[in-house]
Amino acid sequence: MPPIHTFPIRVYYEDTDAGGIMYHASHVRFLERGRTEYLRDLGIHHTALMDRDPEAVVLFVVRRMEIDYAKPARLDDLLTVTTELIELGGASLKLRQMLLRGEDVICRGLLTIATIGPDGRPKRLPADLRAKFAP
Amino acid sequence: MPPIHTFPIRVYYEDTDAGGIMYHASHVRFLERGRTEYLRDLGIHHTALMDRDPEAVVLFVVRRMEIDYAKPARLDDLLTVTTELIELGGASLKLRQMLLRGEDVICRGLLTIATIGPDGRPKRLPADLRAKFAP
Amino acid sequence: MPPIHTFPIRVYYEDTDAGGIMYHASHVRFLERGRTEYLRDLGIHHTALMDRDPEAVVLFVVRRMEIDYAKPARLDDLLTVTTELIELGGASLKLRQMLLRGEDVICRGLLTIATIGPDGRPKRLPADLRAKFAP
Amino acid sequence: MPPIHTFPIRVYYEDTDAGGIMYHASHVRFLERGRTEYLRDLGIHHTALMDRDPEAVVLFVVRRMEIDYAKPARLDDLLTVTTELIELGGASLKLRQMLLRGEDVICRGLLTIATIGPDGRPKRLPADLRAKFAP
Repeated sequence: MPPIHTFPIRVYYEDTDAGGIMYHASHVRFLERGRTEYLRDLGIHHTALMDRDPEAVVLFVVRRMEIDYAKPARLDDLLTVTTELIELGGASLKLRQMLLRGEDVICRGLLTIATIGPDGRPKRLPADLRAKFAP
Repeated sequence: MPPIHTFPIRVYYEDTDAGGIMYHASHVRFLERGRTEYLRDLGIHHTALMDRDPEAVVLFVVRRMEIDYAKPARLDDLLTVTTELIELGGASLKLRQMLLRGEDVICRGLLTIATIGPDGRPKRLPADLRAKFAP
Repeated sequence: MPPIHTFPIRVYYEDTDAGGIMYHASHVRFLERGRTEYLRDLGIHHTALMDRDPEAVVLFVVRRMEIDYAKPARLDDLLTVTTELIELGGASLKLRQMLLRGEDVICRGLLTIATIGPDGRPKRLPADLRAKFAP
Repeated sequence: MPPIHTFPIRVYYEDTDAGGIMYHASHVRFLERGRTEYLRDLGIHHTALMDRDPEAVVLFVVRRMEIDYAKPARLDDLLTVTTELIELGGASLKLRQMLLRGEDVICRGLLTIATIGPDGRPKRLPADLRAKFAP
């Protein structure tokens, strides 16, 4: 897989607000769709994760995010979400993400994702999943 | 409890769209908040429902809805959701709901709610819950 | 254009709820995405509509919807939205829509869309737009 | 007004996801509701801002946010949003916000809000609005 994953997303009415632009929490949803597709392309599916043997179940949760909003996105825009792994820890990942409209940067994000078990406690990323990130 | 339950809801940016008015799926979310508060005031809490003995667990799901949109709602509006039980079946409820701004009707809804078990199949409303609707 | 328009949509975490299935207002958002793509494929773009000469501006708004929920959709499902014009009135359209997962029907919708002017009042669909629906 | 503004918010089904907890973009919407109510209590209403004389119109937009997620929130939780002004610049505000469940911290946020004109460019906060923040 190339180092920077890309995924296209269209802006619909549901994503905008009465200010006439994309609502700032929609960017957060769009980045999550990009991460989900990044994981899917690595062979990691959310629903399959929940169906593993109990001792192997891990969930990916957002622990921290920083988002800089650079330009407004608008209704009907076709955006690209980018996702790039910049750090792979024992029970966490750090990802750099962007929303782009052509070459224009709409926002930049830095996300820390933790891996937890079904009990909600931190859990090391199992070796089979780790191998998918760093083949 | 009086026959028509009321609950106030404020319109925020998240509820509006680039058309400058409340997005039509926000009405659906607002009606659901009204139903949740109607059930809560009857002594029926969603999370408590999930914690009952397995054979007593029921979930309320929307089976059908009809919504007529009469007037637009706008940012900052303070609306009232009304909820009225109009039919109590074996494994379903029929509710009439409205969103109001003062005396203005924003929308009218007619909702059929089914009661299902954890397996997703229809399940009769247990007697203890039925008693809360029709004391 | 074939009589039934189709458009694929993926179910993400944002579309689900703590009941483990797709939240019932997400269906409403998905149907709207399908209608937007149906209009786009006819050559009608929401943003372009707003930029027409003032006397030619029309907006499409939902006047009424009936939705029957048949089966739950789940995280990671790849659904298809279908949109079919069943009536073209002077200042309204009636559309039949469905959400499908393969051959399974998730929900069926019947939507009445009104055309209004910038003042919010009903406005006849201009001839150039009408021609796109009924060439 | 006391230095830390508080506002209660209930968690509904719409705010949760199939992981059984509050979806991470819902926190972002909840913080925005808290900021809107903070501004309203200062006498600053979003819709009134748009109706000012053109040269006095300003909009508040999120320029940057950092959010740390500490504990999951769940369906039916009654949370408190806190909002505290920590810096008042020429055309920006810095706010510290939290979501709390009783004494438990759900998340901590640091938000930079910019003031812009109708053209989307930075615009100094007019004196009458500035006076509301620092009486």
